[in-house]
Amino acid sequence: MRVVTEKIKLKPTIEPKMLDITKDVQGVLDGTGMKSGQALIFVPGSTAGVTTIEYEAGLQTDFREAMDRVFPRGIYHHDEKWGDGNGFSHIRASMLKSSLTVPFDNGDLLLGTWQQIVFCEFDNKKRNRELVVQFTGE
Amino acid sequence: MRVVTEKIKLKPTIEPKMLDITKDVQGVLDGTGMKSGQALIFVPGSTAGVTTIEYEAGLQTDFREAMDRVFPRGIYHHDEKWGDGNGFSHIRASMLKSSLTVPFDNGDLLLGTWQQIVFCEFDNKKRNRELVVQFTGE
Amino acid sequence: MRVVTEKIKLKPTIEPKMLDITKDVQGVLDGTGMKSGQALIFVPGSTAGVTTIEYEAGLQTDFREAMDRVFPRGIYHHDEKWGDGNGFSHIRASMLKSSLTVPFDNGDLLLGTWQQIVFCEFDNKKRNRELVVQFTGE
Repeated sequence: MRVVTEKIKLKPTIEPKMLDITKDVQGVLDGTGMKSGQALIFVPGSTAGVTTIEYEAGLQTDFREAMDRVFPRGIYHHDEKWGDGNGFSHIRASMLKSSLTVPFDNGDLLLGTWQQIVFCEFDNKKRNRELVVQFTGE
Repeated sequence: MRVVTEKIKLKPTIEPKMLDITKDVQGVLDGTGMKSGQALIFVPGSTAGVTTIEYEAGLQTDFREAMDRVFPRGIYHHDEKWGDGNGFSHIRASMLKSSLTVPFDNGDLLLGTWQQIVFCEFDNKKRNRELVVQFTGE
Repeated sequence: MRVVTEKIKLKPTIEPKMLDITKDVQGVLDGTGMKSGQALIFVPGSTAGVTTIEYEAGLQTDFREAMDRVFPRGIYHHDEKWGDGNGFSHIRASMLKSSLTVPFDNGDLLLGTWQQIVFCEFDNKKRNRELVVQFTGE
């Protein structure tokens, strides 16, 4: 058993943006040579999140529209502090959460056929993101 | 320390359905003989999720009604792709997320007295589900 | 590799309350002497949750208002069972979820600069909470 901690550097992102990072995670896993265990994907930041989805254009739009409806843009108390108008970005990130754990076995992430790991950028300023990907296993 | 990866086969489900899988997870844990570590429950699919709840009839209805209110059925862009009308299922699954980690110690899941692990089926077509349950510990 | 399971005792809380527990988690991690691995924070209960946020007053209010808007107080079916009027507490907890995993390396939690780990109390009765914090690593 061992722990391997790596980073995945994304190209700059601004909301609303969803990136399929499945191949990135699988690629780093391949590099470790580990066969069985779990991949922890973590966003070190408070205005983005991570989840799984069937990554196709329609659902990307649906996800964006659901976020706009449920956690709308607008005036948030947070904006009084920094004046950068991204209160909604923070709320979306805290609700979706910054952490996701996916099991792997025989060297493969145990995802469904139509299930991808996605990074969700909620920040209204362009951000350079580096995700933490940590594998625990053997 | 070791990793044990198992599956839990559910009877066919269709939304809206919530299943208490606590005893299933504890049962597989018992079989491993592990005493301390964490149980990762993962749905390999994009139209169901997993969380914890006090599993009683009223809350099951409340959970369903909250989902209906916040992420309503209706027309989603995803439906233009496959025509199967389950855009809402995908959005609910991505928001609730497909992964849950529960610690165990002395061989027992460290849940609260009124807290159960539940599988939430969101798909509008009957599905045969196999969950991944992975234990990391000793 | 080893597993260390500890508890963090909070002072009594009642909703709406968000507590920054980052230093508590880091403090327990320091005590283990572990350098690399993951911290699992788990709420053994069904009316509170855990996530990350930039812990400042404005966002605490925004988070509370978002919860009030999306998962409002009011009459829930659960209230018919116990009559304690905390159906909304359960729904919020199940939606936010009781589990969070944060990686650490070189002995430090790998959080963003403005990102804290927070406990979210949703229960309308004062509760004495003990969180499970479990470290897996080396």
